[in-house]
Amino acid sequence: MSAKSQEPVITKVADLPTNEAKWLALKRVDYVDQTGKARTWEVATRKTRAASAGVDAVAMGNVLRHPARPPATMIVIQYRPPLDAYTVEWPAGLIDERETAEQAAVREFREETGYTCRVVSVSPPQAADPGMSNANMQLVMVEVDLGTDEAVPEQRLEDGEHIERVVVPLAELYDRLLDYAARERFIVAAKLFHFAAGMQFALTTKLT
Amino acid sequence: MSAKSQEPVITKVADLPTNEAKWLALKRVDYVDQTGKARTWEVATRKTRAASAGVDAVAMGNVLRHPARPPATMIVIQYRPPLDAYTVEWPAGLIDERETAEQAAVREFREETGYTCRVVSVSPPQAADPGMSNANMQLVMVEVDLGTDEAVPEQRLEDGEHIERVVVPLAELYDRLLDYAARERFIVAAKLFHFAAGMQFALTTKLT
Repeated sequence: MSAKSQEPVITKVADLPTNEAKWLALKRVDYVDQTGKARTWEVATRKTRAASAGVDAVAMGNVLRHPARPPATMIVIQYRPPLDAYTVEWPAGLIDERETAEQAAVREFREETGYTCRVVSVSPPQAADPGMSNANMQLVMVEVDLGTDEAVPEQRLEDGEHIERVVVPLAELYDRLLDYAARERFIVAAKLFHFAAGMQFALTTKLT
Repeated sequence: MSAKSQEPVITKVADLPTNEAKWLALKRVDYVDQTGKARTWEVATRKTRAASAGVDAVAMGNVLRHPARPPATMIVIQYRPPLDAYTVEWPAGLIDERETAEQAAVREFREETGYTCRVVSVSPPQAADPGMSNANMQLVMVEVDLGTDEAVPEQRLEDGEHIERVVVPLAELYDRLLDYAARERFIVAAKLFHFAAGMQFALTTKLT
């Protein structure tokens, strides 16, 4: 984390009344279940979902292809105040109003990594944490073709964003995530960890 | 979904004041960032995290081994009020006070699937949705050895739980999740989808 000048520090954590929140809300959902019984559930929601896409966010599963090196992926490390920790994730971001998932993926990938990518596939919407929130996201697989001696491009970060980029050979991804998870004040995001764990599982388990 | 007698229906969604919430809370975090600038972030949290484990939940990546069939996994489908949809997930649950992740995994797996499993591995804590919440979880890989003609055991569900179990050969998992995602009022949980996408990626991509 060489670029930053100091460790982030939390100075105060306070209850936030729903009517003062700008980004999030708490809702109480009343519903009738399968047996006809009336029940309630508490839900955290984002206030920012664009009606056009109907999906909160995209994450970019990315493959960097180099003429002479094995395929690699760029992971991003940033301080996340909700966890008071540095998270290890794939580049990701919220879908803006009037954007498609593909457009958001290309835009956010360029902002966080500096690279222009091409979209390979877009997943169906997935539930980020279905017991707690209605947050949803799409996994957009993207690729970047690198030149032999290409310089690493500049990021185009928004004010307040401090994001470190790390390139990891895909064959080493799972082990590298375990290394990060063992570091103090680091935590790997569940989606990236599960993708890498799925890779590792498929490569080490007889499936037929 | 043969067991249920009617489709669940939401009757009301209302703002929930933080001080009336039992399970969730909204917090405002004040922090000083890497450059020394004071900033704020809004965070959704669970009120139920057991201090003993320090982790909210476990999900059970499971392998059912049968003498004569390819390895399979049990996925669970349940109505999730936050999404007003049926979610497709691996069995999962909150870690109780004074439980380890392993103990919670065995207990919850038995409740939701009826099977007694053995724990193969426990992941480090992972951040469920790091831009929005401090929710964290551990992926516990478990196995069940089935007999040749073993009957499917009864679930031990809590009041209000209606969970359908589906056994899927692991080699078909990714395609089956895509099928579910295409069904009306169904959504696949991001962690399970990412694991399956990682499997699919590893099996179809040259990594070295």
